[in-house]
Amino acid sequence: MVTVLVTPTVFRLVLPSLSTSKNNPTMCWKGRSNSLNTNGNNFNFASHRALPVKMQTNDPPEENDTEKRQKELNLNPRQLDLIMDTFGGKLLHGGLVLQQNFLLRSYESDPDGKVSIEALVNRLQESTINHLKSLGLQASGLGSTPEMHTKDLVWVVYRLQIEVERLPTWADVVQVDHWFASASGKRKECDWLVRDYKTGETLIRATSLYMMMNTKTRKISLEKEVGAEMKHLVFKSDPIINKAKKKLQHLDFETADYIRTGLRPLWNDLDINYHVNHVKYISWILESAPRSILASHNLSVMTLEYRKECGWNSILQSLTKLKKDGTSHSTEDGVVEFDHLLRVEDGSEILRGRTKWLPKHSKKSSESINMVYG
Amino acid sequence: MVTVLVTPTVFRLVLPSLSTSKNNPTMCWKGRSNSLNTNGNNFNFASHRALPVKMQTNDPPEENDTEKRQKELNLNPRQLDLIMDTFGGKLLHGGLVLQQNFLLRSYESDPDGKVSIEALVNRLQESTINHLKSLGLQASGLGSTPEMHTKDLVWVVYRLQIEVERLPTWADVVQVDHWFASASGKRKECDWLVRDYKTGETLIRATSLYMMMNTKTRKISLEKEVGAEMKHLVFKSDPIINKAKKKLQHLDFETADYIRTGLRPLWNDLDINYHVNHVKYISWILESAPRSILASHNLSVMTLEYRKECGWNSILQSLTKLKKDGTSHSTEDGVVEFDHLLRVEDGSEILRGRTKWLPKHSKKSSESINMVYG
Repeated sequence: MVTVLVTPTVFRLVLPSLSTSKNNPTMCWKGRSNSLNTNGNNFNFASHRALPVKMQTNDPPEENDTEKRQKELNLNPRQLDLIMDTFGGKLLHGGLVLQQNFLLRSYESDPDGKVSIEALVNRLQESTINHLKSLGLQASGLGSTPEMHTKDLVWVVYRLQIEVERLPTWADVVQVDHWFASASGKRKECDWLVRDYKTGETLIRATSLYMMMNTKTRKISLEKEVGAEMKHLVFKSDPIINKAKKKLQHLDFETADYIRTGLRPLWNDLDINYHVNHVKYISWILESAPRSILASHNLSVMTLEYRKECGWNSILQSLTKLKKDGTSHSTEDGVVEFDHLLRVEDGSEILRGRTKWLPKHSKKSSESINMVYG
Repeated sequence: MVTVLVTPTVFRLVLPSLSTSKNNPTMCWKGRSNSLNTNGNNFNFASHRALPVKMQTNDPPEENDTEKRQKELNLNPRQLDLIMDTFGGKLLHGGLVLQQNFLLRSYESDPDGKVSIEALVNRLQESTINHLKSLGLQASGLGSTPEMHTKDLVWVVYRLQIEVERLPTWADVVQVDHWFASASGKRKECDWLVRDYKTGETLIRATSLYMMMNTKTRKISLEKEVGAEMKHLVFKSDPIINKAKKKLQHLDFETADYIRTGLRPLWNDLDINYHVNHVKYISWILESAPRSILASHNLSVMTLEYRKECGWNSILQSLTKLKKDGTSHSTEDGVVEFDHLLRVEDGSEILRGRTKWLPKHSKKSSESINMVYG
């Protein structure tokens, strides 16, 4: 189960399983020849381009200087960590599962040095779009199939559930498996399993329910025939997470413990439809949670119910209530559970949420890993 | 100059030039053997991991189903676009230039379908950190060298200049060349050239001046001996951009045309030092620019002067003034220039900026490409 990468240099070449099931291709890379040989077919590498800037004539650094420079820089003749981040990913199980690696970047760290949950959910969304793209079933940039595109239909997130075992850190490579857990004429469910690429350790499990929305009426569509092109894509498996059944709690100014007002989308938060990416909502609901808890605890479980689109001119209010019943504690060294609400100033709800946080010094128990939430 | 990728599948294997100058290694990948051969040393591939979820027994999708499924899905036996996004990048010119490819993601699009300038500046920062890491000269996550680390010194951005020819779109691969244009005991200059990986077209040129700051006193450091480990890294070339010499303009509530108050860092904007990543400031200075201009124009030139750190509790004001002198026009179909200021509520300045915008229907002239700014 655990696969350890050979250091210092590992090359991971990935071919889609569809194309390698019968062939036995050989690819070779020879020193400076810049050629790749696959089953007799030559593919040329794009050789690196020289910088077009004019170099000054005194002491130009040449390849011949390499050894001298290595001494100056105290460089060992070691190789860089070269882990490939494949774009298209790899289709498994006859195309039903897309497996894609993502390298996490320095600018995605949260104050704790971990990669933020927002950055990770963005990767989940990306893998879904790439899955459809890989199968030739994407007509527009946001994951609409060709038939949906002709009928002005897009997918909108309705529910998102995430269980976090451990958030990765910068420069980690995560391996995301994506599949469609269900699909009908009006809805689809996506499941994701996120693992540490080096160790195989499960980091995150997530599931999301999408509904079809008509971009002209802005209403949920019930057209049944659209599902035809999706129905063969369902990967039959046990649920990755026990799906939440109960609706999340309503909050208002009277019942909330913490309130943050005046939140507004920035220009940079808008997507191609002049709407706010649903991942941004996660940042906003956490804004009304006490920062002392965010700093002293790790996110363990998150359930979100998206109820309305957020326009680019909306002014939003974030409400949070500390859940005091059940096993929850309000102390900073115990488990903390919150209910959240994001709403427009006129009171219309954008998003309901529930989060569970574990103190940083605690190890997640196997019981909580298998916990049914909601 | 223009390198066209061979489709449908291109594998780009990159070895640092330092390690290939004398050797002629051969690496082979054989079909399903999952082994990589380098100069006689075997590296094992991490094979893909099966999903640990239990599959239901009725109609389990097997590898044998591939051809049937291809027909159902109308899949041609084509391969995915597999363009590798190398992490470490490639060292050129004896280690003085790092060349790294980045794949741009769906969630990084702005309302125009282009990748946001913020997302691109994040990549520039990442390439600088990776350059130092590749050379074994990084001691902490934010690009500090080992000697800096022992003296509590970090790099802080002092000035950033960007000239945009064209912003790329989602799924484009950009090739970033990074080098140090100068380095002394207290400052360094980084230059970047960003090109379209497929065509070689120049997209962005950028330069940034960094100062050393002591993390305990929060003041700029003048320690000279720290530069010793950086001085061999300077790549002597013509400047990528004509460096701005004049200080940017001060603004206040009287002189500004547009004002946006109440901006606050979100928890997700904080980096590992509980400070706001400098890229976030770009979003904030643009918040006070009229959105009609942001929607109808493309960013052409941006100059930023960072003057003070922004703490996680700051409440900020963004001020913008339409520049009416010179060749600028205030109409929505002409060239627009802005002065910007970002400041804390008490009036202390965080950032001064100047931006130039071209109407979307205009083609950038060669004159403007070579324009000296500032």
